Amino acid sequence: MPSITFDDLDEGMRQVMTASGRGKLDWASSRMVVLGKLGSEIRERGHLSGRRIAMSLHPEAKTGVLALTLARAGAEVRLTTCNPLSTDDEVSLALRTFDVTPGTLEVRARKGIDRDEYFRALNWALDMSPQIVIDDGGDLVRLLHTERRDLLKDVLGGCEETTTGIHRLKAMAAEGRLDFPMMDANDCAMKHLFDNRYGTGQSTLDGIMTATNLCIAGMEAVVAGYGWCGRGIAMRLKGMGAIVTVTEVDPVKAVEAVMDGFRVRRMEDASRTASLIITATGCCDIVGENIIRGLPDGCILANSGHFDNEIDVSYLRRTAVSVKRSRRHVEDLIMPDGRRLHLLSEGRLVNLAAGQGHPVEIMDMSFAIQAAGAELIAMKGRELPKDVVPFPEDLDRRIAILKLSAMGQSLDVLTSEQERYLSSWEEGT
Amino acid sequence: MPSITFDDLDEGMRQVMTASGRGKLDWASSRMVVLGKLGSEIRERGHLSGRRIAMSLHPEAKTGVLALTLARAGAEVRLTTCNPLSTDDEVSLALRTFDVTPGTLEVRARKGIDRDEYFRALNWALDMSPQIVIDDGGDLVRLLHTERRDLLKDVLGGCEETTTGIHRLKAMAAEGRLDFPMMDANDCAMKHLFDNRYGTGQSTLDGIMTATNLCIAGMEAVVAGYGWCGRGIAMRLKGMGAIVTVTEVDPVKAVEAVMDGFRVRRMEDASRTASLIITATGCCDIVGENIIRGLPDGCILANSGHFDNEIDVSYLRRTAVSVKRSRRHVEDLIMPDGRRLHLLSEGRLVNLAAGQGHPVEIMDMSFAIQAAGAELIAMKGRELPKDVVPFPEDLDRRIAILKLSAMGQSLDVLTSEQERYLSSWEEGT
Amino acid sequence: MPSITFDDLDEGMRQVMTASGRGKLDWASSRMVVLGKLGSEIRERGHLSGRRIAMSLHPEAKTGVLALTLARAGAEVRLTTCNPLSTDDEVSLALRTFDVTPGTLEVRARKGIDRDEYFRALNWALDMSPQIVIDDGGDLVRLLHTERRDLLKDVLGGCEETTTGIHRLKAMAAEGRLDFPMMDANDCAMKHLFDNRYGTGQSTLDGIMTATNLCIAGMEAVVAGYGWCGRGIAMRLKGMGAIVTVTEVDPVKAVEAVMDGFRVRRMEDASRTASLIITATGCCDIVGENIIRGLPDGCILANSGHFDNEIDVSYLRRTAVSVKRSRRHVEDLIMPDGRRLHLLSEGRLVNLAAGQGHPVEIMDMSFAIQAAGAELIAMKGRELPKDVVPFPEDLDRRIAILKLSAMGQSLDVLTSEQERYLSSWEEGT
Amino acid sequence: MPSITFDDLDEGMRQVMTASGRGKLDWASSRMVVLGKLGSEIRERGHLSGRRIAMSLHPEAKTGVLALTLARAGAEVRLTTCNPLSTDDEVSLALRTFDVTPGTLEVRARKGIDRDEYFRALNWALDMSPQIVIDDGGDLVRLLHTERRDLLKDVLGGCEETTTGIHRLKAMAAEGRLDFPMMDANDCAMKHLFDNRYGTGQSTLDGIMTATNLCIAGMEAVVAGYGWCGRGIAMRLKGMGAIVTVTEVDPVKAVEAVMDGFRVRRMEDASRTASLIITATGCCDIVGENIIRGLPDGCILANSGHFDNEIDVSYLRRTAVSVKRSRRHVEDLIMPDGRRLHLLSEGRLVNLAAGQGHPVEIMDMSFAIQAAGAELIAMKGRELPKDVVPFPEDLDRRIAILKLSAMGQSLDVLTSEQERYLSSWEEGT
Repeated sequence: MPSITFDDLDEGMRQVMTASGRGKLDWASSRMVVLGKLGSEIRERGHLSGRRIAMSLHPEAKTGVLALTLARAGAEVRLTTCNPLSTDDEVSLALRTFDVTPGTLEVRARKGIDRDEYFRALNWALDMSPQIVIDDGGDLVRLLHTERRDLLKDVLGGCEETTTGIHRLKAMAAEGRLDFPMMDANDCAMKHLFDNRYGTGQSTLDGIMTATNLCIAGMEAVVAGYGWCGRGIAMRLKGMGAIVTVTEVDPVKAVEAVMDGFRVRRMEDASRTASLIITATGCCDIVGENIIRGLPDGCILANSGHFDNEIDVSYLRRTAVSVKRSRRHVEDLIMPDGRRLHLLSEGRLVNLAAGQGHPVEIMDMSFAIQAAGAELIAMKGRELPKDVVPFPEDLDRRIAILKLSAMGQSLDVLTSEQERYLSSWEEGT
Repeated sequence: MPSITFDDLDEGMRQVMTASGRGKLDWASSRMVVLGKLGSEIRERGHLSGRRIAMSLHPEAKTGVLALTLARAGAEVRLTTCNPLSTDDEVSLALRTFDVTPGTLEVRARKGIDRDEYFRALNWALDMSPQIVIDDGGDLVRLLHTERRDLLKDVLGGCEETTTGIHRLKAMAAEGRLDFPMMDANDCAMKHLFDNRYGTGQSTLDGIMTATNLCIAGMEAVVAGYGWCGRGIAMRLKGMGAIVTVTEVDPVKAVEAVMDGFRVRRMEDASRTASLIITATGCCDIVGENIIRGLPDGCILANSGHFDNEIDVSYLRRTAVSVKRSRRHVEDLIMPDGRRLHLLSEGRLVNLAAGQGHPVEIMDMSFAIQAAGAELIAMKGRELPKDVVPFPEDLDRRIAILKLSAMGQSLDVLTSEQERYLSSWEEGT
Repeated sequence: MPSITFDDLDEGMRQVMTASGRGKLDWASSRMVVLGKLGSEIRERGHLSGRRIAMSLHPEAKTGVLALTLARAGAEVRLTTCNPLSTDDEVSLALRTFDVTPGTLEVRARKGIDRDEYFRALNWALDMSPQIVIDDGGDLVRLLHTERRDLLKDVLGGCEETTTGIHRLKAMAAEGRLDFPMMDANDCAMKHLFDNRYGTGQSTLDGIMTATNLCIAGMEAVVAGYGWCGRGIAMRLKGMGAIVTVTEVDPVKAVEAVMDGFRVRRMEDASRTASLIITATGCCDIVGENIIRGLPDGCILANSGHFDNEIDVSYLRRTAVSVKRSRRHVEDLIMPDGRRLHLLSEGRLVNLAAGQGHPVEIMDMSFAIQAAGAELIAMKGRELPKDVVPFPEDLDRRIAILKLSAMGQSLDVLTSEQERYLSSWEEGT
Repeated sequence: MPSITFDDLDEGMRQVMTASGRGKLDWASSRMVVLGKLGSEIRERGHLSGRRIAMSLHPEAKTGVLALTLARAGAEVRLTTCNPLSTDDEVSLALRTFDVTPGTLEVRARKGIDRDEYFRALNWALDMSPQIVIDDGGDLVRLLHTERRDLLKDVLGGCEETTTGIHRLKAMAAEGRLDFPMMDANDCAMKHLFDNRYGTGQSTLDGIMTATNLCIAGMEAVVAGYGWCGRGIAMRLKGMGAIVTVTEVDPVKAVEAVMDGFRVRRMEDASRTASLIITATGCCDIVGENIIRGLPDGCILANSGHFDNEIDVSYLRRTAVSVKRSRRHVEDLIMPDGRRLHLLSEGRLVNLAAGQGHPVEIMDMSFAIQAAGAELIAMKGRELPKDVVPFPEDLDRRIAILKLSAMGQSLDVLTSEQERYLSSWEEGT
């Protein structure tokens, strides 16, 4: 296992990687215009000055730009990962080389660490006794509410990025066990409509193509889950020519999937002829033992959900008679009956582990929301309820207008007559 | 103008039309399985028995099946139209010939009536002093709150079908001027996600193709509005090969449109090279005088919004040097500078006036909701707030499950372990 | 059965229908800019002056514009149908009312004639002893080579429109039994790439939606044949949200279908869960007895191939225990085991029988080719081989440039350096 | 510049890369079922035994499998590259480690070599005095007809892979200057319909996403050329949500592009608002000086055509005031007026330089054709004309049937009655 401090790298390699990481950060930064704009404003207002912020996110280029933005706005920032496989090592190295005055930025993350090292890194981030936490998936917040309760008193609040994390936070809040306000970034339209759908859609395809070099066109693929992530994946698979079947437990979403042109079947049936299965449910055991038993020879398994429990990786590995890595992100498993199954990125989110994460322009919006959330907590953390807290609505509007302009598109505006008409009820046929 | 009582028809024609209308009603009925199932249950429960229901909807085959369902459940029903151009005359005639015991059904509707006749028909429906109103667009409810206030005391409440109607009702409620509860059918997922999007999408394309016989593929089309209706239209236009530009005033929807692959421009710019403009905004003056001045020669104008004020028909007609009807649903207008413009269906909703309205399976879901709403009002109208009232959530689920099964698709189910996992927050990486 | 001479119509109805037909012809004419341009040139060159032309095509508005164009260029034209169900009666009536000086135009066609009347009409067209024949499907040419061989001596040649007709002509030519040159309009890129694909695609969808008012989105549909017509239909079904399976006998086309995102199955398997089956193969017995036996309840059968033998209509009708027409273009057949099957337009091409045929702009190109073919035969018929003859290539280019400009699109042009580069072979890496 | 013999690598790195290359070759091999099947048959027939084969292709995993197949069939094989940027170094290393008895396999290729080294490598391959040449782009064949004419006497013939190469060969043959037969692999349906369209489509998107991590959805993209490659790219860009404009010089293809839903404009106009331009024309100077002058700030330039002359890279670099590499495959050029332009992969084919080349299943078909071509030349090279020679038609059918079965799809078969019907001409309406 690689050392999280990169001690094993010789100086030449370290320099090459650092330079490459800086290039990625520059590139991302030049395209993250919404975060750029909001970041400048936040810096000027000064509410983050001197604040301690612990971040547990996927540390790749776009995340790096967020961390730099917060640090340059005056915060003391510690950045670690939220997943053992999702760090971009070049970015992790490069982030240490920027001048972030007036704040500070420390990073502790590397791709391919084990579970122990992962939790050591989370704890290292918490050791700063953060006032604000930026979380993705909920591990940081959970630690604060269990092993690190001693730190709770300093915490003003935080932001959570992902559906899975919000799901866990709401369960905590429902039990009255959430001890500080958590801004729900995922609830923002400009986050979940885009990050979860177009972001996951593109990055999952990117990850799978990079991992396999297989032809998406004509492939019989199954997408588990037709939430925002699942529909993004299904839409892009179809756009690349795949033949897609969807599985769902929510009947309303299932009917939507059908009317979007997808067969909807139970996983038990859909998986029998699948060349590729992608899970994006936020639930465990989607491809469990009973499903794995019926998979056809050559089937490829990938996960785009937050945790690595959607595919039963443990069953796969302990049952296989042979496990080897044929390509960087592909594990070949020969089952006792001779079938070859292929697991991508160890069942961890394939879009980050084998791909480069969401596109830059998407994360620009998501992280503009995170930056706004950090400032909000800094300003009003003590006033907000100890609950999952929605963002003010005008933030979506602000971000959308900035993004639209960056894309070279134009918005129409209502005339005053039209506004009057829309608020009246007396005019009819 | 045709007589709303069809007195001008000779008996032979009347019989032919009636027979054709019955065929349409039989066909629709055989495919409306959700309404069929819920209708039987409502009849058995008996809450509609003897209730007076006034319906102002688009009287074509699917609406007819709803009216028959309510009447057969024991209600006294009066059905009239909610739009001067949207009646299917064959259905209007045929509906008079069914046995609806134990209830009664009276119909007063014809395609192509004028504004006076339209309001006479609405008033005729109200003359029954209804206890329940089923409205589409809000004209019936407005009449009850203005000219026909004397009838208010008997009204238990009603249901409203469409975005425009709900918009008006909420404006009334906000002013404290809504005098009975109105169930918000449009708020149901199984209504607005399907009726507004896939329904409007297909029926608008159907209407335009029927009206013009022109090639959608390669046509430069502009869709005004990217709400549920607008995105349905844009999606289907693209699916038929059109080159689509979208106009929006809401920046969040605008960014969605862009990421769905559509150019987003101001109407002023988009309209200059448009071969086809379709409005679906719920707002007035989308294609107003200043836009019309810049339209290219040959441009076709259609509206799928509820009211006929999205295109400024009056300006068009009074400015044109020549107005003639080249095809059944096409009006050719020669402008003073020689440009030919083409208005479809007099600017009234093209999907109903030139097409056959939404597909049967879509209206099956929408009208199952209306039937459930009528029963709810009958049971609890006096208890509900005088406001726009959402349906209970489980109705969506019920309808979705019935529809999914009718489509031959299958739902997955959570295991108890999965349910437990989804309600916990302690399991993480 | 209606009289082909429309004697059964009263004068009022005749006038209404004629006026409506003229409107359709005016509308089509205003959008058929390529035929308009080429037609003027042909008229000026005068080669068609006094030529006798027999046309057997689908007599609807676009065909009418072709007939008018040829007559106005000086030809004596007789127009009849090539299919018992594809005439637009309003157009058939209206065509008789135009001034076509210097030529003449006679029409004999009505929707819904029987087989005897159909052949009487073909023979009536041949009675003029044509010099040029314009055929669609090959019936006219076959008659000339069998029962009407006496007329062969005057025939200079002709044009054939459709894949099926060309298929038959090539079989004749291969046996040395074709007695005059037949221009292969279908071979032109601007014909088969557009008419067969985008034309059939749109008009088939139009026909099915008009016939049934059912929801295409989410429907499990089977398309038989992935030739130009089949892929047009499959593409548009997908564009409207259907879940499409394709059947093919040609493995190359089958792999294309798969990579375009369609399941490819044998009809025997695909049909078992189909809600809709559309045939477009040019072959007989695609939905034959053994397939019909396995169809699910409620299945809808439609044909877009030239002849009505792709679905075994005769087996269906003689086996059904009940046959009735529920909607204008829908026949309900109750099978002995209780299944309800629905046949559209009696198994004849649904896009013409229930729809309005191909879009105007598509037929503009196809008929510009036919007009050019008629002139070519008039000029060089005696010199050309007695075979299926391709058009000169520059015709495609000419038509494409005119169409592109009509669509408001722009072509790039090669610089002289680029032209030189493209003809060299010495420049490489 | 790296040494083509990899002398600069230390042994540890060499072993890691070799192991990774073997994994890629194993993976590709396991999915290349058509080449696997045809390769076995060729080996058994023995015609390649002892033949000398020089190959100039893109040396990555799928190409490696072809080289191994030919060598194992008994040939002496020398493999080099056909492009300075398209080698996969890991594969280049790994190929040297396989046992290819009874043949031999030598490889000389590395990513990032310069023009001199590139031509030294081609000449090294020719030094074996090949009997058969397998070429991609035509450089090998050109060398044999210019500087290496001394070797011509031994050459039996060869195969050419790509549109550009065939274009050059036909120009040579037209001048009577082609001295041996060249099999036209590109002419096979199973090559150009798939490799050029779905292959280039997917791999170009893969390359661009890998290079930039930018969001394809909502991006205004221009595709130059609507040949098989261009339409593959346009189709997949649209499938990923881009807003696509096409440029063409062929009016027929231009009309197809329009009806497929793309705007068609001159490059001069289309490029002004483009975020991304991709060239796939086979022609030079598509993005030349005059176009570059009008490009908007931030525009990204990529090429998927065979040669690197579609974008005027030399003008870009000599005009820019600053050139730096921000990401691995991205060159940032600051123009004198301050605009930033971004060139991907130095203007060389982005799908190979930044991506992994075409998907495995696609190259399986293309290389099965190449293997069949090599055998054909070995058997009949002396008999074939010194021209571009098409493959026998049944090869397409054979490959398609194997591929279809590998994809789990099923072909329908004609009954004998249907076959009879299809060959008759007497049956009609």
